[in-house]
Amino acid sequence: MNTESLTDRPVVRLKPGGRKKRPQRGSPWIFANEVAMNAAAKALPPGEIVRLETDAGEALGAYVFNKHPLICARRLSHDPAARIDEAFLAERLRRAAAVRDRLIGAPYYRLVHAEADGLPGTIVDRFDDVLVLQVNTAGMDRLLPQLTAALEATLAPRAIVLRNDSAARELEGLSSDVRMLKGQLDGPLELVENGTRFLADPREGQKTGWFYDQRDNRAFAARLAQGARVLDGYCYTGGFAVQAALGGAAEVVAIDRSQPALDLAAQSAKLNGVEERCCFVKADVFGELQRRRDAGEAFDTVIVDPPAFVKSKKDYWQGLKGYRKLTRLAAALVARGGYLVACSCSHHVTPDDFGEQVRRGLSEVGRDGRILRFAGAGPDHPVHPSLPETGYLKAQALALD
Amino acid sequence: MNTESLTDRPVVRLKPGGRKKRPQRGSPWIFANEVAMNAAAKALPPGEIVRLETDAGEALGAYVFNKHPLICARRLSHDPAARIDEAFLAERLRRAAAVRDRLIGAPYYRLVHAEADGLPGTIVDRFDDVLVLQVNTAGMDRLLPQLTAALEATLAPRAIVLRNDSAARELEGLSSDVRMLKGQLDGPLELVENGTRFLADPREGQKTGWFYDQRDNRAFAARLAQGARVLDGYCYTGGFAVQAALGGAAEVVAIDRSQPALDLAAQSAKLNGVEERCCFVKADVFGELQRRRDAGEAFDTVIVDPPAFVKSKKDYWQGLKGYRKLTRLAAALVARGGYLVACSCSHHVTPDDFGEQVRRGLSEVGRDGRILRFAGAGPDHPVHPSLPETGYLKAQALALD
Repeated sequence: MNTESLTDRPVVRLKPGGRKKRPQRGSPWIFANEVAMNAAAKALPPGEIVRLETDAGEALGAYVFNKHPLICARRLSHDPAARIDEAFLAERLRRAAAVRDRLIGAPYYRLVHAEADGLPGTIVDRFDDVLVLQVNTAGMDRLLPQLTAALEATLAPRAIVLRNDSAARELEGLSSDVRMLKGQLDGPLELVENGTRFLADPREGQKTGWFYDQRDNRAFAARLAQGARVLDGYCYTGGFAVQAALGGAAEVVAIDRSQPALDLAAQSAKLNGVEERCCFVKADVFGELQRRRDAGEAFDTVIVDPPAFVKSKKDYWQGLKGYRKLTRLAAALVARGGYLVACSCSHHVTPDDFGEQVRRGLSEVGRDGRILRFAGAGPDHPVHPSLPETGYLKAQALALD
Repeated sequence: MNTESLTDRPVVRLKPGGRKKRPQRGSPWIFANEVAMNAAAKALPPGEIVRLETDAGEALGAYVFNKHPLICARRLSHDPAARIDEAFLAERLRRAAAVRDRLIGAPYYRLVHAEADGLPGTIVDRFDDVLVLQVNTAGMDRLLPQLTAALEATLAPRAIVLRNDSAARELEGLSSDVRMLKGQLDGPLELVENGTRFLADPREGQKTGWFYDQRDNRAFAARLAQGARVLDGYCYTGGFAVQAALGGAAEVVAIDRSQPALDLAAQSAKLNGVEERCCFVKADVFGELQRRRDAGEAFDTVIVDPPAFVKSKKDYWQGLKGYRKLTRLAAALVARGGYLVACSCSHHVTPDDFGEQVRRGLSEVGRDGRILRFAGAGPDHPVHPSLPETGYLKAQALALD
């Protein structure tokens, strides 16, 4: 580890000219084509902490460096000699926790959201005294012992789950690694979101087992669901569906292809005493929406929160079409005067492009409406001001004529 | 009036070719260079209801028409023969009220937000049983008697204030007209926002006397203000300031140049029993922020919600600089670990451009931070899906290091 050797930290320099303005404009990212990738740089082990300099030798800060991925350096500190140790990481964690504790009424939130919280590519989701950790950069991977100690010192969790099985790790040359760093879990965890109880499975579920990013959008959707017949497409473990039911929906039909997810959703419905108003359906959402439309069904409120249709830039136009088609199918099921909540979690899709697909989808089925809310993720998923493109979530709520 | 003559409604046609796709893509606006501005069209009185057709004679709907402004036709209905009368308008009002009553817990909101609510250029703000009406198109101006009757039939208000003194009216060739359409007002009105009591003056204040668009952003800012020393620049009648104080701020310094606005703000502080924690200062905000910075002051939370710096496209770059400078001055006053809420209500400024100025302002004073929330107006200010550019409000809340 390089955490102690501050003065003889390896130096990586930017190329002369070129895009050296990027870090000076505040971005914490350096791209591989921006650095002088000389023999010394190439010889650095993935994740080494380096002193980054301009070609003129001006220090830009302490960065984690990895020659393999496109984003080859990520800033840890403006101070090139910053000591990157448990205390450094604990300070970042305390700062992150302070914001969440102020804004979110219960200890269930994303504690660390990567660059915006000053910990490159690092995700920590908190389920009260259980933490789920995902480290997506070689630099933070090398710091895992210090990070674990810092989590311990800051939050004294009962258990820490390592969910190092993301696709992002491959880009950094890191292997998959899922295990308990501390304690044990016997089965799913309970969490509370907007006053609703849920079950999540951090070991087996998607990502960290729960999508905290939709918290505020679910609260808004629940207000659109009061007294309504609701359809929730891609319900996963019931985040929108059960909150809608507890918020006063007359009936919720929730659709997903994953039986384990549906089982958890059904258990969550029971936890909240709304199981009689929830119907969980195992089906492909596109097909099920079409089938119900053909059968003449209608719903007062339709929510569609699909997995990312655009997983890479080459999927862009095809994926966009998917959002349009889904909007068409969903809107066709909305009763007159009802509501539609359409979401996209595709990183590559801009809010403008997503909005345009929703508009076209509505237009293609002859529905007029108005956008009541167009939001991203909640405040426990902050965005770095220099990386606005990392704000991936889009949720548009419309009132239809 | 043309409200009864449905079959012999005047016809206005789009030019051949050109941008005839616009209305077909859902936009409710037609621009003057898109229509065949022949002698018959030119002879139509401003605000006439017309049947709009493509150059091939395909009907596009019933539109209000005015040859003078750049936006010469605005859609009332897809049905070219729609009867535009009190019942038609009352239906639009009922639909608009249903959404607000569902989403906003008290009868204080923007009831009608122009195109998104199907009433071109028409604003209705509701203060319980008092309505404030602003009509910014010749077409709706001609329909004022029917609209007033529809408001009467739908909401039975005690009073209706006509605030027809906007700059937008000039573009339509309409004169200024401020008067009571019904009832009388003796002094400012009381309203409730997020559980806080306020006073507003619909006859003398800016716009309709209250900016309901910031409701949700004020609620969020109040959470950032708990236990904090708060500065509110451009406080106007105290929307952010008094909610912050009632939300638990230790001290609020609120600055504005308008003494009448400050007087109302101070009265609102008293109404909520927080006057001892509020200090209202009559000053130019730029100068006062600089002065306090020079004096070494710091605040835990700083909110700046200025009037539009970009009032027309020619002001664009100069106005953008204004947002950057204001961010610089405001951020320099934020204590370590504090919060900044920066707003812009300039229609012309895109969220991306505003965000970039905030980022640069922070960078210029060497402050790092993360964006917790980047929102527009609340759901009583809906946006037409085909006119995303009409979403004018931008409020960015950041946690600073």
